[in-house]
Amino acid sequence: MDSDFGIPRELSDLQKLRSLYLPEVPPCLQGTTVRVEFGDTTTCADPADVHAISRAFPHTYGQPLAHFLRATAKVPDAQIITDHPDVSEKSRLVMGVQLKSSYLADVFIVSQQGWEYSSVGDSLLEDIMLYGVFNTLLKSIILKSKLLGFLGGSEGLFAQKTLEITDEILETYKNQGGYDLLGRTKDQIRTTEQVKAALNACKDLKLDALVIIGGVTSNTDAAQLAETFAEAKCQTKVVGVPVTLNGDLKNQFVETDVGFDTICKVNSQLISNVCTDALSAEKYYYFIRLMGRKASHVALECTLQSHPNMVILGEEVAASKFTLFDLTKKICDAVQARAEQDKNHGVILLPEGLIESIPEVYALLKEIHSLLKQGVAPDSISSQLSPWASALLEFLPPFIKRELLLHPESDDSAQLSQIETEKLLAHLVEAEMNRRQKEGTYKGKKFNAICHFFGYQARGSLPSKFDCDYAYVLGHICYHILAAGLNGYMATISNLKSPSNKWRCGAAPITAMMTVKHWAQSPGASSIGKPAIHPATVDLKGKAYELLRVNAGKFLMEDLYRNPGPLQFDGPGADSKAVSLCVEDQDYMGRIKKLQEYLDKVRNIVKPGCSQDVLKAALSVMSSVTEVLSVMSSTSSNGLTTL
Amino acid sequence: MDSDFGIPRELSDLQKLRSLYLPEVPPCLQGTTVRVEFGDTTTCADPADVHAISRAFPHTYGQPLAHFLRATAKVPDAQIITDHPDVSEKSRLVMGVQLKSSYLADVFIVSQQGWEYSSVGDSLLEDIMLYGVFNTLLKSIILKSKLLGFLGGSEGLFAQKTLEITDEILETYKNQGGYDLLGRTKDQIRTTEQVKAALNACKDLKLDALVIIGGVTSNTDAAQLAETFAEAKCQTKVVGVPVTLNGDLKNQFVETDVGFDTICKVNSQLISNVCTDALSAEKYYYFIRLMGRKASHVALECTLQSHPNMVILGEEVAASKFTLFDLTKKICDAVQARAEQDKNHGVILLPEGLIESIPEVYALLKEIHSLLKQGVAPDSISSQLSPWASALLEFLPPFIKRELLLHPESDDSAQLSQIETEKLLAHLVEAEMNRRQKEGTYKGKKFNAICHFFGYQARGSLPSKFDCDYAYVLGHICYHILAAGLNGYMATISNLKSPSNKWRCGAAPITAMMTVKHWAQSPGASSIGKPAIHPATVDLKGKAYELLRVNAGKFLMEDLYRNPGPLQFDGPGADSKAVSLCVEDQDYMGRIKKLQEYLDKVRNIVKPGCSQDVLKAALSVMSSVTEVLSVMSSTSSNGLTTL
Repeated sequence: MDSDFGIPRELSDLQKLRSLYLPEVPPCLQGTTVRVEFGDTTTCADPADVHAISRAFPHTYGQPLAHFLRATAKVPDAQIITDHPDVSEKSRLVMGVQLKSSYLADVFIVSQQGWEYSSVGDSLLEDIMLYGVFNTLLKSIILKSKLLGFLGGSEGLFAQKTLEITDEILETYKNQGGYDLLGRTKDQIRTTEQVKAALNACKDLKLDALVIIGGVTSNTDAAQLAETFAEAKCQTKVVGVPVTLNGDLKNQFVETDVGFDTICKVNSQLISNVCTDALSAEKYYYFIRLMGRKASHVALECTLQSHPNMVILGEEVAASKFTLFDLTKKICDAVQARAEQDKNHGVILLPEGLIESIPEVYALLKEIHSLLKQGVAPDSISSQLSPWASALLEFLPPFIKRELLLHPESDDSAQLSQIETEKLLAHLVEAEMNRRQKEGTYKGKKFNAICHFFGYQARGSLPSKFDCDYAYVLGHICYHILAAGLNGYMATISNLKSPSNKWRCGAAPITAMMTVKHWAQSPGASSIGKPAIHPATVDLKGKAYELLRVNAGKFLMEDLYRNPGPLQFDGPGADSKAVSLCVEDQDYMGRIKKLQEYLDKVRNIVKPGCSQDVLKAALSVMSSVTEVLSVMSSTSSNGLTTL
Repeated sequence: MDSDFGIPRELSDLQKLRSLYLPEVPPCLQGTTVRVEFGDTTTCADPADVHAISRAFPHTYGQPLAHFLRATAKVPDAQIITDHPDVSEKSRLVMGVQLKSSYLADVFIVSQQGWEYSSVGDSLLEDIMLYGVFNTLLKSIILKSKLLGFLGGSEGLFAQKTLEITDEILETYKNQGGYDLLGRTKDQIRTTEQVKAALNACKDLKLDALVIIGGVTSNTDAAQLAETFAEAKCQTKVVGVPVTLNGDLKNQFVETDVGFDTICKVNSQLISNVCTDALSAEKYYYFIRLMGRKASHVALECTLQSHPNMVILGEEVAASKFTLFDLTKKICDAVQARAEQDKNHGVILLPEGLIESIPEVYALLKEIHSLLKQGVAPDSISSQLSPWASALLEFLPPFIKRELLLHPESDDSAQLSQIETEKLLAHLVEAEMNRRQKEGTYKGKKFNAICHFFGYQARGSLPSKFDCDYAYVLGHICYHILAAGLNGYMATISNLKSPSNKWRCGAAPITAMMTVKHWAQSPGASSIGKPAIHPATVDLKGKAYELLRVNAGKFLMEDLYRNPGPLQFDGPGADSKAVSLCVEDQDYMGRIKKLQEYLDKVRNIVKPGCSQDVLKAALSVMSSVTEVLSVMSSTSSNGLTTL
């Protein structure tokens, strides 16, 4: 199996073109030195979680934000810890890359994945990252260093199975995803033994750093390793990078993930083609399920791109507690309303996570999974379910029954890619429409559904220009984080909706992105989970969802299908960005910096020696400011929800 | 239903860009006048069919080829019938367009489809055609003319349900497929009543011409209408245009069809993404079925683009009479050979027509369809089949059984898009691999298959630049055919693999593309079918197939996956053409012209008055030439095969 990896490939014209593409780095990372400016120490989003997180991460919780600036940038009075020379000067630092494996002497980059499916998405663009890091390294002329890939994921790390990644090999993978450069596995670094094995590998290899590329699970693991390494006084620093096609690693510091843009563009192209087909045939309803795990970010973005008639977000269903019956009725009413306008076709998007958001199905799945864990055979489960759950299971068509009885993933979620929610809903809607037709309440054409699952065909695509640029710059930031000696940080870029020369580069402690789940197990008793980065769900108060909400009626009735077309690398289409990225007014890091400047200004004005009046005014104003903010801050507590 | 059609749409940036794209017409169609040069009268490919075709088409069989040239082109002695002025001069000619409907005063363009499914593919790029024709018309400043679309296919033609197509409406559809501009139906013009209705409509509307855009069925209908109109002395001329995503309207005169390039590019992108996924996960076999009807052109082209591990062409299976058992064994042996090299993944392409090429399945389908036609209910069919057919049906898994029992299409073929051949083969291969594993002959990883059907998501795509250019120039040729007063012709372009300024524009009688099917019903008795254009199957002696054959071994074992990437409109990828178009050395029309020049030269040299010696030499040489050619020509008889 090993012989396959990293072989230079035959490239199509377009691949050749892409392999020559060299993204630009923002001005702040150009020049011979880069300055690291530290901001204030960080907290997590929910004050109620501070205690649990700081206790779990005593060495790495509460570290300051870091901003990377040109060495020539004027930052009066800012706390500047390091002016580190750029890569060409610092030949002592050597970096290794593990893509789900690979190494280059002392510093280590692991792309490690929580579970297989996430792994799939998460690794989409690793080699761009790799290219980013590698190219930086090449500039540094560390001739003694080698870049080795670990073959077959974390197992390769533990067993030290390596492949030397030469410039020649990388040449045919640059800007192309490189998903297939080193292979993938579903293993992870989660148990105490695995953490120890990683620690030992890093020690044995005398790595300066380990960079973990992935989604929420991988980056949670990164934080855990950083803490463990710090406690063990291991010299290896751990850095995380946000890469996942689900787009669900999203928080104050992370605006979007590498891979999300590509996946949405490829899926939107296909959805739009299907919309055209619908409008032309005028007699089919297309039910399209999209990959994206629990959160509905991909489905939302694709809707904003392609304007299908309907999308049912898992977050809406969970918030409104829509049952299967409610959903069926909602779709049937829409079909009926359209038929009254002589429209007998339509396109409906469903995120794969939808199935777990439907309350009664969620409860059923919980019962099934608990029986499976007790070793009950799938065939005998129905008889051991509670009466209502058994009745629900028996009510469902056979194909979906078989899929619901599959073993859960390692993160306890159902095997979402295997459950054909689109077929289930098409089946229920068809039955109901036939009933209404018989009854005479529905007078349109016979209801016909065609079902699709868009997943595998979007993965592994050539990445969009945006994703190439984003990953390339993140690769550079990784180097600077490591050069600054930081541990337990994630590479971040803010202001992503602007052109890349306006991007702000920085790093945030991974612990600042964590939350803690609280479960009420029974009245009076509750338990809390381990601190972790949880998948961010679609914010129903956010601007992207608002854009959908105000247009949903028009999309439903007026067939305003829009075709973003195939992913472009040249010409006007090439620089388009995700709608959901552009409508949000994010730039958290920019605002944090701005606030810091205001506070610095106040501090400057009221320096010892200032007039009594100024001091009094400042005191009075700041007292009311702090009061307002503490009230706001405590009410926002528990504001974060996870499924 | 009507209110939907032709509404100006909200366009994405890429759509806006495409709507501004204006293809160039070749030099021969530029200038103020265009010259029509007629070649020799035509015959059909198989001399044995001449009698049947000429009897069925007494008015339109045997017409000469037509070449369009610049008016300034020097064509000594060529038979020049018409020097017609370009559109700006000839204001009397008015054209209408029916896309599956639409009209503009006197001349009529119908995009009419044989059966629904073909209709789908065939109409992919109609609006480009429309744009080609319409733009030509705009230049002609025929202010009194109107462009009307017939809504809902041929029914719209009969009922004269029209929509005025204004420049404003067309603005948002240019170069975008326009599949959804006027809607589609599955109706056709086949029965005597339908032909009469079309004739009456054309007479009532006083159309100068009717242009039929589509695949083999539509163009056969076009020829039939041309003959009927000529016999009825109706002034309306009928012209055909080759547009079908299946790529199976292919003959001496037609190198490829509008739509084929786009479909293959979109599918290849998706196949390549799946290949990357396969190489990354290293444990799945992906079985991908592709649309394309009976012929395997799409599967062949996609294989030459993406280099998956295996493709099974229907033509190979039919030629070698591979049974289901043979196919299963062939795939299993490949899986086993790969496993011995530690490769436990792969990608296998299957054309949807494959199922009908498997001899025993074909025979089974024939029995089923004959029972269905007798009105036997699907549930009772198994018991009425011959014993072997019944045994085969019962051997197959339930899902495929249900699909084989579906009613056939109107062209008597099975419902290919509904029969999940990929799941059937994956199922059979899995059973056999498990058997081999138990037996100990297979030692690789457990065999895992993931199945896909790529069809709907490629239809309705924004068309490739090649298809836009091709359709646009065909649109212009239509005008010139009509201006020259020709009836029963198809617009043709040869030398398509060269840049568009080297394209040769012409027209060929549709009857010259026809063949006749001969069936041996029982020993001693035979019947012949109606003359028709039949779908061209992949030529197993052709260069495209040869390219596959010499590489098949490497593709199978070495994972030489190649990613053509998403369809590009700008930059280096934008001008790529289909591999199967470029490797073939076609240019039939160019050679016909060249031969004509030689014959003209001989005629010039041996003009009355030439020396006795020259005449003798010419006689002797030409006598042996004609002898050789007649022998070759009669042996090539019956050389055409159709399934």
